[in-house]
Amino acid sequence: MIFSTLDELRAACRDLPAGDEAAAAEAIARQGQLTKPPGSLGRLEDLAIWLARWQGRAIPRLDRIGIVVFAGNHGIAARGVSAFPIEVTAQMVANYAAGGAAINRLAEAAGAALSVVSLDLDVPTADFTRAPAMDDAAFLAAVSAGYGAVAPDLDLFAVGEMGIGNTTAAAALCAALLGGGGSRWVGRGTGVDDAGLVRKREAVDAGLARHAGRVADPLAVAAALGGRELGAMLGATLAARRHRIPMLLDGFVATAAVLPLARLAADGLAHCRAAHVSAEPGHKAVLSALGLTPLLDLGMRLGEGTGAATAMLLARAAIACHAGMATFAEAGVAEKTV
Amino acid sequence: MIFSTLDELRAACRDLPAGDEAAAAEAIARQGQLTKPPGSLGRLEDLAIWLARWQGRAIPRLDRIGIVVFAGNHGIAARGVSAFPIEVTAQMVANYAAGGAAINRLAEAAGAALSVVSLDLDVPTADFTRAPAMDDAAFLAAVSAGYGAVAPDLDLFAVGEMGIGNTTAAAALCAALLGGGGSRWVGRGTGVDDAGLVRKREAVDAGLARHAGRVADPLAVAAALGGRELGAMLGATLAARRHRIPMLLDGFVATAAVLPLARLAADGLAHCRAAHVSAEPGHKAVLSALGLTPLLDLGMRLGEGTGAATAMLLARAAIACHAGMATFAEAGVAEKTV
Repeated sequence: MIFSTLDELRAACRDLPAGDEAAAAEAIARQGQLTKPPGSLGRLEDLAIWLARWQGRAIPRLDRIGIVVFAGNHGIAARGVSAFPIEVTAQMVANYAAGGAAINRLAEAAGAALSVVSLDLDVPTADFTRAPAMDDAAFLAAVSAGYGAVAPDLDLFAVGEMGIGNTTAAAALCAALLGGGGSRWVGRGTGVDDAGLVRKREAVDAGLARHAGRVADPLAVAAALGGRELGAMLGATLAARRHRIPMLLDGFVATAAVLPLARLAADGLAHCRAAHVSAEPGHKAVLSALGLTPLLDLGMRLGEGTGAATAMLLARAAIACHAGMATFAEAGVAEKTV
Repeated sequence: MIFSTLDELRAACRDLPAGDEAAAAEAIARQGQLTKPPGSLGRLEDLAIWLARWQGRAIPRLDRIGIVVFAGNHGIAARGVSAFPIEVTAQMVANYAAGGAAINRLAEAAGAALSVVSLDLDVPTADFTRAPAMDDAAFLAAVSAGYGAVAPDLDLFAVGEMGIGNTTAAAALCAALLGGGGSRWVGRGTGVDDAGLVRKREAVDAGLARHAGRVADPLAVAAALGGRELGAMLGATLAARRHRIPMLLDGFVATAAVLPLARLAADGLAHCRAAHVSAEPGHKAVLSALGLTPLLDLGMRLGEGTGAATAMLLARAAIACHAGMATFAEAGVAEKTV
């Protein structure tokens, strides 16, 4: 799917399939018959039912799990908002190719196929304090690239990101779409010092002031304050929904990136679960605004899809129980009597 | 190890090896060189360092993971404190043997070897509102059985339990050793109704009143208010420490069972991490009393070691990163500059 105008993309964000409630109901019934007190597997039961709903299978499978990491560069990085130089984006993409990054190891542990999409790393977006980060064409190209990166037959999916400076872009997106200024949404990202934190807040506030006229249009906000990898994550999350693929949301940047979808359709993220809440303080706030309860709270703050990959292990645990446990009748175990 | 007297067991609980701080320091140094912002893997970094400390290896391995489920029956169950009949303990042991229970599936997902030890299921402990649940000999036999069930060369270990009525025993142990009556420590366990909840509280309060004279001696409390599988979990946790095997604590019952070890030695649980906090309200309180922060909070309340098995997946994720990621130097990635 190639989106040529913001209106086309907006229409796609509002034309979303529902989950399969019959499959979900069958999964709920099965959970009640497995040899355990009803509800005693907690969120592992919810995960199995959620996977059933979006896969359309009462007993979901996890044969094809995909993770796509999108990488982009940010003009805002020139304002000293990151602890790392902009060259690290490409260096980390090389590290992914060589298999040396955290997401390589975690994807392998989760049994997920990992792919990496670099988005014009040699052409950083514009410094959003001075101009829109992207014009409409650049933004739509990024969204379309993300949309096209999703294999339609996946059983479970997640996206991750790499982009020096992108927690600043994510904070600006949250501020524009959810309210509050830089001080509400900015955190230390990869670990900036106090002076860097001040520069991040000032950059966000300057971006908000410059692009205040756009806040009524979530897609225009994403173009002006976001980044290529954020646009691609929006496109990929939209594609997953349109293919009815259940999806785990990663960290602060990945969650901020899909705010436009939640804004354009009330149930736009119904196919998603929040994999984790990161140590970046804005993440908790944006999850709360979206009504999402994270599965994990491990103080992670790396991005790359690492939180989502870790939560995929929980999905595997959930399906191991859901698909493989005996029922009370099969095992000859007495059911609850009181 | 066969313990013949409470004094012998008490002495063993106070004769505990320390972890390997040199291996831990090497692991900390390695984490600082891996291609990620320092600290950005959060508790996955802590898990790797903790495993290094107790395995005595800077790069820990997870080749031999063990889970032992201990099963026992409780006289207190006759007071209507559980939603399930006492026969379910043996029925579930048969279900474990057949491979149909949640712990079978979760142990398999974690790559852990599962074994099950039944402790005199046809001889329930005494109703502790009328007499000590066990005399010293029966208690020491259970502790010794647990101690002997631990293979000394494991890389990671956990215990689980099955025993209709055992959340009542666990609540009584917590109340006696940490203060507060039945209303502080009793929850719905496998799912008792309101009347059952009242019976549980009354049973705990009656047990506390009858055995008030023992509260100064944690081992005497464990004999009077605990159960065989709780005694065995205490013995196994002690054995793991003496073999320097890192261990994940499971739910409310497993955590209550090891309170005597924490009481007898200030760092008695230093080799343990709390796998999760369950939906049983007493679990959060006992973890807090022990100063333990759970890795997972998924609303699970099944026991059997299921929370610990699920957290073993996080240990695998931690070691996948710790052992397999490239360093900044290896990958040619620039380090933090600000």
